[in-house]
Amino acid sequence: MQKLALVKLGGSVVTFKDKALSANTQAIDDISHALARIEMPTIIIHGGGSFGHYFSVQYDMHTKAAPYDPHGVSIVHESMMALNQIIVNSMIKAGANPYSVSPSVFTRGHLVSADKVRQLLDMTRKSNVTPVTFGDVVYMGARKYSILSGDALMSLIAKVLKPSRVIFATNVDGIYRDMDTKEIVNELTTEANHFVEFSKIPGADVTGGMQRKVKEAFKIASMGMDVVLVNGLYPERIIQAAHGKIQKATVIRGRRPRQIARR
Amino acid sequence: MQKLALVKLGGSVVTFKDKALSANTQAIDDISHALARIEMPTIIIHGGGSFGHYFSVQYDMHTKAAPYDPHGVSIVHESMMALNQIIVNSMIKAGANPYSVSPSVFTRGHLVSADKVRQLLDMTRKSNVTPVTFGDVVYMGARKYSILSGDALMSLIAKVLKPSRVIFATNVDGIYRDMDTKEIVNELTTEANHFVEFSKIPGADVTGGMQRKVKEAFKIASMGMDVVLVNGLYPERIIQAAHGKIQKATVIRGRRPRQIARR
Repeated sequence: MQKLALVKLGGSVVTFKDKALSANTQAIDDISHALARIEMPTIIIHGGGSFGHYFSVQYDMHTKAAPYDPHGVSIVHESMMALNQIIVNSMIKAGANPYSVSPSVFTRGHLVSADKVRQLLDMTRKSNVTPVTFGDVVYMGARKYSILSGDALMSLIAKVLKPSRVIFATNVDGIYRDMDTKEIVNELTTEANHFVEFSKIPGADVTGGMQRKVKEAFKIASMGMDVVLVNGLYPERIIQAAHGKIQKATVIRGRRPRQIARR
Repeated sequence: MQKLALVKLGGSVVTFKDKALSANTQAIDDISHALARIEMPTIIIHGGGSFGHYFSVQYDMHTKAAPYDPHGVSIVHESMMALNQIIVNSMIKAGANPYSVSPSVFTRGHLVSADKVRQLLDMTRKSNVTPVTFGDVVYMGARKYSILSGDALMSLIAKVLKPSRVIFATNVDGIYRDMDTKEIVNELTTEANHFVEFSKIPGADVTGGMQRKVKEAFKIASMGMDVVLVNGLYPERIIQAAHGKIQKATVIRGRRPRQIARR
């Protein structure tokens, strides 16, 4: 396991999801200051929200590889670069050394180049430069493009680097046991994992975009890493999670080596 | 040889070189409209000017791989992304489908992945998406970074793709025969090539940044491609060059196959 915090900033945290191209600059600035205080190598991934996600919906683009409208490809990618710029500039102002990395740098289609992913670790660990990557529309060959989501990138990078901290920051406090009381589940094990049907996770009420995140989170936990879901609108919780001091969050405990060996 | 226009937009064309972070938005918009009228697959490379180049000088960063100041790495890369954004947005407004590609996507250090470069050709030829890449600061491994210039990228990409049109757009009309009269050399052959000492090219008065461009131009011509140096502040000359109708420019004739075989 690498001493590394892999942090996903959800589109619901860094943007206002309903209005096109509206970044939540206050949240971004607060998070940038928090990230600058994390005392370990860090790789950041951010989602699309009212930037890339908004336009991918408008142009009917999905994870399925298909010959999508080239203008849509251009617009979705451009909007992600624009959001990335806002985040990177905020991090620079907070005193960090962010380095924008589009996912095409370390992927080919939806496969990763382990070698290139290890370069990202190298950058943050050896030279104090923080890679900042993002969900994006990527070329798949033969006229086809595809959405490679920030959540999917979390799994792809975690698989190669085995980070000591895997953190999903969303706009909710964790996985709700009950949507009405907003009581959250503090801890889950991978045994609660039924990937496709995790609406059946005992006591977990999961909906919409959160569902994809939880799916990836379980996938990562099943590789042996603890995964933390925190509310990114309270950036100190991201710092706490990175430093292993969980207060308010859902932790999905990584499958232990013994369990893995048993399979 | 591929039906492809490989176009380098010099930092002196797309920016005002003396003032930090000042884009020549008028020139960029004019060029974007011109590029949208080129009727063939196109790949764009742009330089750094008062963005990346300006800051690389400030942070004393060079093509030599070295453990440069990480904050400089962050600032130089970020400024290039910012300039790239301005160009890409201008191209979108002009009706094109640009797609920003940082050079790390198709390089490793200063070596190219031929496979990834061919994907760029694929994108423009098969799906009408125009890759827009740029000179950048790239990770070299072992804490070291390096400047990979837009001019160097021209050679790297030309070598793999053998474009039918290779065009350097600068802020001058071509290679001057005489700096005082501003008379330009219409045509040169690779025989005039003495790479290191091309100040000795008969009748060619070459200085400063132009020198690097001419060096790369000769390198590309020696691989068998004609290379055109045009004034990008007259964007119709870029269109003419792409369509093979040279009026005011310097053409460096590609070494013919017979000559190559002879070596």
